[in-house]
Amino acid sequence: MKIAIAQINTTVGDFAGNSAKIITGIRQGERAGVDVVLFPELAISGYPPRDMLEKPSFIEGNLRAIEAVAKETRGTAALVGFASRNESKDGRGLFNSAGFLHDGSVKFVQHKTLLPQYDVFDEGRHFEPAKEHEVYEFKGRRIGITLCEDLWSKHSFRGRRLYRVDPAHLLKEAGAELIFNISASPFTVGKQRIRYDLFSAEAKSVGLPVFYCNMVGGNDELVFDGRSFVLDAEGRTVCEAQAFEEDFIVVDSDAMGKPSDIVDLPEEEEIWRALVLGLSDYMKKCGFARAVVGLSGGIDSAVVAAIACDAVGPDKVLGVMLPSPYTEERSLRDAERLARNLGISTWHVPINEIYETYRRALGYSSKDAGEVSLAEENIQSRIRGNILMAISNREGSIVLSTGNKSELSVGYCTLYGDMAGGFALISDIPKKIVYRLAQYANRGGERIPKAIILRPPSAELKPNQADTDSLPPYDVLDPIMRHYIEDRMSAEEIVARGFDKDTALRIIRMIDANEYKRRQAPPGIKITMKAFGMGRRFPIARKS
Amino acid sequence: MKIAIAQINTTVGDFAGNSAKIITGIRQGERAGVDVVLFPELAISGYPPRDMLEKPSFIEGNLRAIEAVAKETRGTAALVGFASRNESKDGRGLFNSAGFLHDGSVKFVQHKTLLPQYDVFDEGRHFEPAKEHEVYEFKGRRIGITLCEDLWSKHSFRGRRLYRVDPAHLLKEAGAELIFNISASPFTVGKQRIRYDLFSAEAKSVGLPVFYCNMVGGNDELVFDGRSFVLDAEGRTVCEAQAFEEDFIVVDSDAMGKPSDIVDLPEEEEIWRALVLGLSDYMKKCGFARAVVGLSGGIDSAVVAAIACDAVGPDKVLGVMLPSPYTEERSLRDAERLARNLGISTWHVPINEIYETYRRALGYSSKDAGEVSLAEENIQSRIRGNILMAISNREGSIVLSTGNKSELSVGYCTLYGDMAGGFALISDIPKKIVYRLAQYANRGGERIPKAIILRPPSAELKPNQADTDSLPPYDVLDPIMRHYIEDRMSAEEIVARGFDKDTALRIIRMIDANEYKRRQAPPGIKITMKAFGMGRRFPIARKS
Repeated sequence: MKIAIAQINTTVGDFAGNSAKIITGIRQGERAGVDVVLFPELAISGYPPRDMLEKPSFIEGNLRAIEAVAKETRGTAALVGFASRNESKDGRGLFNSAGFLHDGSVKFVQHKTLLPQYDVFDEGRHFEPAKEHEVYEFKGRRIGITLCEDLWSKHSFRGRRLYRVDPAHLLKEAGAELIFNISASPFTVGKQRIRYDLFSAEAKSVGLPVFYCNMVGGNDELVFDGRSFVLDAEGRTVCEAQAFEEDFIVVDSDAMGKPSDIVDLPEEEEIWRALVLGLSDYMKKCGFARAVVGLSGGIDSAVVAAIACDAVGPDKVLGVMLPSPYTEERSLRDAERLARNLGISTWHVPINEIYETYRRALGYSSKDAGEVSLAEENIQSRIRGNILMAISNREGSIVLSTGNKSELSVGYCTLYGDMAGGFALISDIPKKIVYRLAQYANRGGERIPKAIILRPPSAELKPNQADTDSLPPYDVLDPIMRHYIEDRMSAEEIVARGFDKDTALRIIRMIDANEYKRRQAPPGIKITMKAFGMGRRFPIARKS
Repeated sequence: MKIAIAQINTTVGDFAGNSAKIITGIRQGERAGVDVVLFPELAISGYPPRDMLEKPSFIEGNLRAIEAVAKETRGTAALVGFASRNESKDGRGLFNSAGFLHDGSVKFVQHKTLLPQYDVFDEGRHFEPAKEHEVYEFKGRRIGITLCEDLWSKHSFRGRRLYRVDPAHLLKEAGAELIFNISASPFTVGKQRIRYDLFSAEAKSVGLPVFYCNMVGGNDELVFDGRSFVLDAEGRTVCEAQAFEEDFIVVDSDAMGKPSDIVDLPEEEEIWRALVLGLSDYMKKCGFARAVVGLSGGIDSAVVAAIACDAVGPDKVLGVMLPSPYTEERSLRDAERLARNLGISTWHVPINEIYETYRRALGYSSKDAGEVSLAEENIQSRIRGNILMAISNREGSIVLSTGNKSELSVGYCTLYGDMAGGFALISDIPKKIVYRLAQYANRGGERIPKAIILRPPSAELKPNQADTDSLPPYDVLDPIMRHYIEDRMSAEEIVARGFDKDTALRIIRMIDANEYKRRQAPPGIKITMKAFGMGRRFPIARKS
């Protein structure tokens, strides 16, 4: 049996566009003499649809679309993800389903069994789990259909198995000869190896080949990295699709070819490409053609600008320099050089005069410039935010805020100031990784000037300021942050790893105290196991 | 059996404070000769703990606290909500539990069965449902213990029954003579009548009295209104606790007293009191002593200032007037009169000069003041946001933003401008209800000047501006918004209710297009069936 995997990039709610992509994939399969083409989970509706699923008109649009796509099928079948109604009067009203379409209609539907409800996933909010697991026989082959998490039943989540049901085994018992899996599995660093290990163990355990189709593309905070694959009955990869782009691969289940390992991308490369895809899709899907970035001469804004150039092209990126009385000359020089390297236009808007009028209005003495208060630092940052937003308002461009995860975690950032923007591109990137991304940006020659990379980080909101005036060095901050947020360690456990107790407690206190800032942050792209945003839900008013 | 209900106000993570309140309630019960005192759901940890439940140290703190509270019990028992560990190696790691404590230890634990996962609730994210339902015999009575949603199994959610299990009936079959229910049931307008109808039907259906203990207090976006009650075996109320404050009521199950109906509070009163409690608790639990409000002379800021005065006292509220070139004289006059009526201090910070320096920096001609662009409108609004935030930074006060739900839904508000603040007090109040709240504020004499109530609403960001230049009248906007957001109607269904098609489509388009603004809004208090915030999760990048 010839099986194709169509790794497509869908948009939530774009039934017409998503259907067109699916039909294109079916035609491509027909031309290649394929028996069945696999499309991702919820390909019809886009993923994650979130509470759009509560709108009856959304469900109807999705059902009309799957029927219309089915009408386009002839001998080549398609396996397509969509939301189906639960006709029973109790339980949740929907299923997360895979429709097997051929010869003009939906012939068979398998619902998803294991519904993730951790981190960014809310599937138990909308979907009822499948109770039945039947195989579908097509062209003499008995096919077992699973959706994403259905093959994650063996996974250990912080030492626990979440699920008691193992859909692949139920399907094997029902006579399956092949396992199909359609997924919407978002990227995090190193995720592909986790998927491979899990799916490979599952293939071996049931002794069946696995055809896994993942989606690709950015949707708000999530980037789907594609990298669909086919495993033989011994769990070895026989084919892997491209990372971070659409792809179409064909494998004959009767001649699966020589096994080889999955491709491990270097960490910097996979992060860079995730950010490029996530940004370009966010802009495209939200209707922005142009981006604007405040260039401080620091490394964060340099990396953001470079990624933006790769995402939408330098002619679509504007760099704005917004010097204050505390901006050093070399910051402007470095920013100018960066802009020349990247080939982007720049605009200079000095904020001194605006800053002074604010200070007067608020009753600050005109003499007293030596001691800059926190309020005055924030005013500078917010003036910059306002100017970038005014440019965005005028030109219809999106402001990319430039804060990294280290700053955002400890609140070393200003609400409505440097946090202002439509998209917080690197808000899940720890500062140490920002440096590695800067090196990666320069892999083919200088794009980010060395001076920017080498200079000690500073917010330049008062004279001779350095990040280390307020924060521990990032060598210390970053691992403590990771242990606390990603590994959910307590202060005691972190200290047991060899970190200074006062430093650890101070960082934890800062992280806890800044929930209110993060609540108002723009969306950013998740690349770690635990990003701020939809997958991390903490109360603001609380103790401990 | 003498049963007390201790309707207490807990704080998430404040194990010491919550335990102290519980022990105080136990002592009060002992003095009153009570057999058992009921406390709310998750009283030990506070509610909603959200992802704090993923921190092992949080669970340990909560377990230590329930043990410590148990040690304080003697003959008078306590039923207390806490999070317990699921000792099985699979499924989610926690239960939402009620511990029956007496004579120094936890004698019995019943887990929650029905875990809400809709709207603001994420209980399926952390908790495993109960599989077992046993009664606990205490002083010769067989007690059936339920938690909140466990008595909601008969509820119809948009035409569906979510649950197949009915815990009260299982407990009745197990021999229960009394049903206890400990809850954390948040307020929405009219909710108490829904609870009464459900619980009363449940009491009648099992033929047992129901003792229902709800929590009280504000926690981020949710306000818990208390109003615990006791129903006899025919489902009639024999006692109801206070609304929006702590209370302690005692009912003898052998002499339940004369039934009477639950108290229906007038809508304005219940909303007002919810906002007062929600704000005062948010400030207290976040550590803010003072609040600052920008006073425009309009009705939204007037209502916010009046509520703030009731919440924390007029001496803790600062009103700031921020006139721009387009602020009419009478706006300032009305704001001054409001401030005098409320007894709050005011501060004037004209923004003209700052606005002009921004305009120059951005290259706007100094002559061209006639046509004010959207970018220029936003600049004015953001200058005000910055100044309020600078005052907040300097004085450690919280900025209360003043936008209502109607504006927020259609995006008639400025990110980082009028949306700036720590708490968006009226962000779930439709404009028409803001007017009713203003009338309610004046029930004992003028607090909000009549001129403010009578004047047509305007943002005053350009000459002779009125809200109706950009928006349909609120008489039209508010019901369309409600049908779309709360009732999840499609455009067709709304038009079928008699609304103009173009208007309905335009409003829906505006609501859909402004998801990105709401993503960055401060938290506000939920009072409707569907508020923006944690209970409404929409993608930004999408079609339809």
